[in-house]
Amino acid sequence: MTLTAEKNQAIDETQAELFQTRRAMSDDLDTVLYEPFKVLDKGFVRVIDYMGNDAAVTQSARVSYGKGTKMLNQDKGLINYLMRHRHTTPFEMCEIKFHVKLPIFIARQWIRHRTANVNEYSARYSILSKEFYIPEPDQLAVQSTLNKQGRGETLNAQESARVLEILRGDSERCYDHYQEMLNEDADENILDENRSGLARELARMNLTMNYYTEWYWKVDLHNLFHFLSLRADSHAQYEIQAYANTMLELVKKWVPLSYEAFMKYRKNATHLSEPATKLVKKLIKGEKISPDEKGMGAREWREFLDQLDLKEDDILLANAA
Amino acid sequence: MTLTAEKNQAIDETQAELFQTRRAMSDDLDTVLYEPFKVLDKGFVRVIDYMGNDAAVTQSARVSYGKGTKMLNQDKGLINYLMRHRHTTPFEMCEIKFHVKLPIFIARQWIRHRTANVNEYSARYSILSKEFYIPEPDQLAVQSTLNKQGRGETLNAQESARVLEILRGDSERCYDHYQEMLNEDADENILDENRSGLARELARMNLTMNYYTEWYWKVDLHNLFHFLSLRADSHAQYEIQAYANTMLELVKKWVPLSYEAFMKYRKNATHLSEPATKLVKKLIKGEKISPDEKGMGAREWREFLDQLDLKEDDILLANAA
Amino acid sequence: MTLTAEKNQAIDETQAELFQTRRAMSDDLDTVLYEPFKVLDKGFVRVIDYMGNDAAVTQSARVSYGKGTKMLNQDKGLINYLMRHRHTTPFEMCEIKFHVKLPIFIARQWIRHRTANVNEYSARYSILSKEFYIPEPDQLAVQSTLNKQGRGETLNAQESARVLEILRGDSERCYDHYQEMLNEDADENILDENRSGLARELARMNLTMNYYTEWYWKVDLHNLFHFLSLRADSHAQYEIQAYANTMLELVKKWVPLSYEAFMKYRKNATHLSEPATKLVKKLIKGEKISPDEKGMGAREWREFLDQLDLKEDDILLANAA
Amino acid sequence: MTLTAEKNQAIDETQAELFQTRRAMSDDLDTVLYEPFKVLDKGFVRVIDYMGNDAAVTQSARVSYGKGTKMLNQDKGLINYLMRHRHTTPFEMCEIKFHVKLPIFIARQWIRHRTANVNEYSARYSILSKEFYIPEPDQLAVQSTLNKQGRGETLNAQESARVLEILRGDSERCYDHYQEMLNEDADENILDENRSGLARELARMNLTMNYYTEWYWKVDLHNLFHFLSLRADSHAQYEIQAYANTMLELVKKWVPLSYEAFMKYRKNATHLSEPATKLVKKLIKGEKISPDEKGMGAREWREFLDQLDLKEDDILLANAA
Repeated sequence: MTLTAEKNQAIDETQAELFQTRRAMSDDLDTVLYEPFKVLDKGFVRVIDYMGNDAAVTQSARVSYGKGTKMLNQDKGLINYLMRHRHTTPFEMCEIKFHVKLPIFIARQWIRHRTANVNEYSARYSILSKEFYIPEPDQLAVQSTLNKQGRGETLNAQESARVLEILRGDSERCYDHYQEMLNEDADENILDENRSGLARELARMNLTMNYYTEWYWKVDLHNLFHFLSLRADSHAQYEIQAYANTMLELVKKWVPLSYEAFMKYRKNATHLSEPATKLVKKLIKGEKISPDEKGMGAREWREFLDQLDLKEDDILLANAA
Repeated sequence: MTLTAEKNQAIDETQAELFQTRRAMSDDLDTVLYEPFKVLDKGFVRVIDYMGNDAAVTQSARVSYGKGTKMLNQDKGLINYLMRHRHTTPFEMCEIKFHVKLPIFIARQWIRHRTANVNEYSARYSILSKEFYIPEPDQLAVQSTLNKQGRGETLNAQESARVLEILRGDSERCYDHYQEMLNEDADENILDENRSGLARELARMNLTMNYYTEWYWKVDLHNLFHFLSLRADSHAQYEIQAYANTMLELVKKWVPLSYEAFMKYRKNATHLSEPATKLVKKLIKGEKISPDEKGMGAREWREFLDQLDLKEDDILLANAA
Repeated sequence: MTLTAEKNQAIDETQAELFQTRRAMSDDLDTVLYEPFKVLDKGFVRVIDYMGNDAAVTQSARVSYGKGTKMLNQDKGLINYLMRHRHTTPFEMCEIKFHVKLPIFIARQWIRHRTANVNEYSARYSILSKEFYIPEPDQLAVQSTLNKQGRGETLNAQESARVLEILRGDSERCYDHYQEMLNEDADENILDENRSGLARELARMNLTMNYYTEWYWKVDLHNLFHFLSLRADSHAQYEIQAYANTMLELVKKWVPLSYEAFMKYRKNATHLSEPATKLVKKLIKGEKISPDEKGMGAREWREFLDQLDLKEDDILLANAA
Repeated sequence: MTLTAEKNQAIDETQAELFQTRRAMSDDLDTVLYEPFKVLDKGFVRVIDYMGNDAAVTQSARVSYGKGTKMLNQDKGLINYLMRHRHTTPFEMCEIKFHVKLPIFIARQWIRHRTANVNEYSARYSILSKEFYIPEPDQLAVQSTLNKQGRGETLNAQESARVLEILRGDSERCYDHYQEMLNEDADENILDENRSGLARELARMNLTMNYYTEWYWKVDLHNLFHFLSLRADSHAQYEIQAYANTMLELVKKWVPLSYEAFMKYRKNATHLSEPATKLVKKLIKGEKISPDEKGMGAREWREFLDQLDLKEDDILLANAA
């Protein structure tokens, strides 16, 4: 992440100004407002604004005339209760606005979350900077054979080198041509220098999908938790996980009690299907499971064992192997 | 609107506290935060929180690293441009949270606007107060004969008196019975005094729809403008107009430039259908319209004349009458 | 549910017509199209239209050029996989449209589900029928002392009789006055008989919340499952459960494989919080739990025991009591 | 658009099957179901399914027990009325599902419309085909100087040739490298042939944004009209206009009355701001406008003249030039 001096100055100036407000505060988040948190090689997440705090959750749950808070213990209990029983509307009463810089192929995953407000940098209107994502070698992995949309083992040094050579080379060349078509190249321009270049809305199609874009993204806390439960998950693509994990840390600063409830009842919770529930009840009684009782396929069975740190040999009847 | 001493105190205490923040401010709105603005006989609108200001609109439109503002004139121009060309996403970057007290039959209209967050006072969990809406006599009007869902002329004094007698009487009686069923009546309770009363989720069904409810309602500026364009409109039911007009004044304090753009390009704008556009082109050329050129039905024609302050006699060919 | 002869005839006529289509079919649902399924004393649920079937789920998951189906077994496996891994978008590719008649206080709960399309009978424009909900005596219960928004034990015969007397009496009287204000009463009208009555948008406020309303409600399968997971749940208010359970049966006819996956992975699944997961792991190992290891409050603990059919005495260390 | 024999066969088979249904029909749309309509060089739009027809709009507006239709004339009048007065919910009662093949940079514009269901071909899971968009030479234009996000004059033959050479060359090379990284290239593969190639979720980032993707996209009629009002507009990017115009023709087949109302009251309607309305009123009275009365900037003024086919000289006071 290399911000221009101009951009850094704009950030610094914005951070320096302090105002007096009657609004609900989150001191820990206010302190890091506008700060860019680096993600991947050139991306970042910045919090631009927020509305509400943990007390705003209880305040709206109580449809309160004042702050809506009682004893810390009661507030914590209420927040846990709301999270546990899927009373989601009070969490919708907090809102956060991010400025995110991210590779386009990740932006395409991200935007599938529709319950958010987004304003993206327009490549119809403006020219994209020459900034593209190149993965770290330890992130270069083969297609997983177990999981059809995941990664398996890491490439060796020689393989990695070739992949990085390709990614860099194509990104460079495509950008050079982008500039040439836009008449923004000092030496080689397609068009007569007295004309504007090819329309930006067309030229942009020549860029590869690792180019960085930027957007303002605003979401309420409930929908952010939903996003994080899917994207800060170990099955999500590494690159979007990196953003989600950074955002999770920022949520912790913002609304520590809600964050804790989220971790306890959502992120680190276990979801047992109907057949899995039956098996667990049996196991708790000290009984073993016969193979024909499993009630689930091979992959689901593997996931079941993983969820509860179980070993097949310990829970299957002897003749099960 | 008669708030209890306890509620007034809670409001006063919340208003008295000041904090330091780095967030975008709207001084004029911050000053009236938490203040209840009276609507109808016992309702109110309070602003509980807000995110962003006019500069936040331009900031996100420019995907800016700083405040995103330039010269006031440029910002104003950009906001007008965005409003005029229906670039709605930058207006979604501002958010506001209201606490509203309103009659249930109005809440039922209001909630049809789905793009908002709402947390309502729960009558499953709590007991509703004895507060019901009684219209002012000058609001009691007959069913309109022109507009199938509007009001016509006002009732006379005797008629009004009877309507108000009915509304008050039924509201009172239903509430007395509500309390009786809940075992909350000192004298007459349905159930043995050692038991709790009828479940609240059931007892509430005996209340009439002019009873007041309360909710926290949070919405982004774009969707609020959409709400206001429909509900601060002269064809909306008077009672919801009253809320919308109060909110419109609060929006003016919050984001004066966006408010101005909204009034100019949306609220006070004129929408001409394809046939109406043709007629206007003719009229501008100084030509008159023959009756068979109208291209619209009687009601639409009346609306067309009203929109442009036209008189039929002035624009129709002589033989048109 | 007593539909007028006219309404029954309209339904019969609509059911009698058959057309030829190339669209995806669900024979079992098509057969009961338009049929009113009775709910509560006078309400109903009718399926008016549907789009897609189980194959449409797999078709969109595979972004297919044909039907998108393979062997039944593979389709079933894919649908289970999608449900298990929260890949919700393929389920959004099916849509269903209901006509529902329901008491207003239940409509107010229902409408909180925002991701649906709704068109309600307008009491600004039309006059509501004299139809109100009266619960069966065995549904009249006291406020629960355990669950602040639930029901406890049932009323005795005498108590029930008084509640029903109140509900009926107030509903009757409010409707008589409604008619009087609307000038629709043969004998007593408020207004001169040459005038229209009080505007309908005003008169309606005098009705109690057990009056029936009607709406068309259209939703995609994913959001319908979300609705059903909350409203066909035993903690939901009985009256809305009654509607949800009727709809669940209709879903079973429509998309049997998706229904089965929903029951297995959502409706009958168990959700274990982080601390509950720890306890389960211990219990499976045959260990007992000491009271200070619980990591949850009294109510949560009770819910935990219920979820897994556990008895406190069996799993707590002896000195735990 | 060159579909493989296999895909064509799948389409043909699906089209050949006919079923009997009780559902609302649209014969003209049913006939072309599944048919790919070519858009751009290799893209298409296919209608996969639909729910409802014009009668379904009036049926839900009337909360009807039967078909909901009356005389054709009344239905037409009602649909026009609903469109004119922005009663949008009845139009939400119709739903349509498309299968669309489109360049990724257009998909990125399209997806900003959030009120739709979408299921996209997954490049994490599958390998993208070698199909990329190359514009027709007459679509290659320079950046507009008037409109910062539009196109100006067309390139000359030599310039076009160079642009097309770049686009083709980079698309080809990037795809070759994509295959090499995936170990799908017969000759040059990065990895040992006994291993799977680079994870697909990574390799895809090397493709340029003119590559085609595919999705199932499902939307209700109201939101489709909103999409079409923005994207079938002459200011939209040519490539997305091409899709929108194809869809508009399909809507005409599906719901001809709603289509007509949309064209009349939305697409071909004129929107006059508050100052523009004032000017129009003056002009109708036969008065001319003095320059300081304009009340709008240069660009807005130009748009105003265009909207009503006015010439500045005809309407400005003589000293205005």
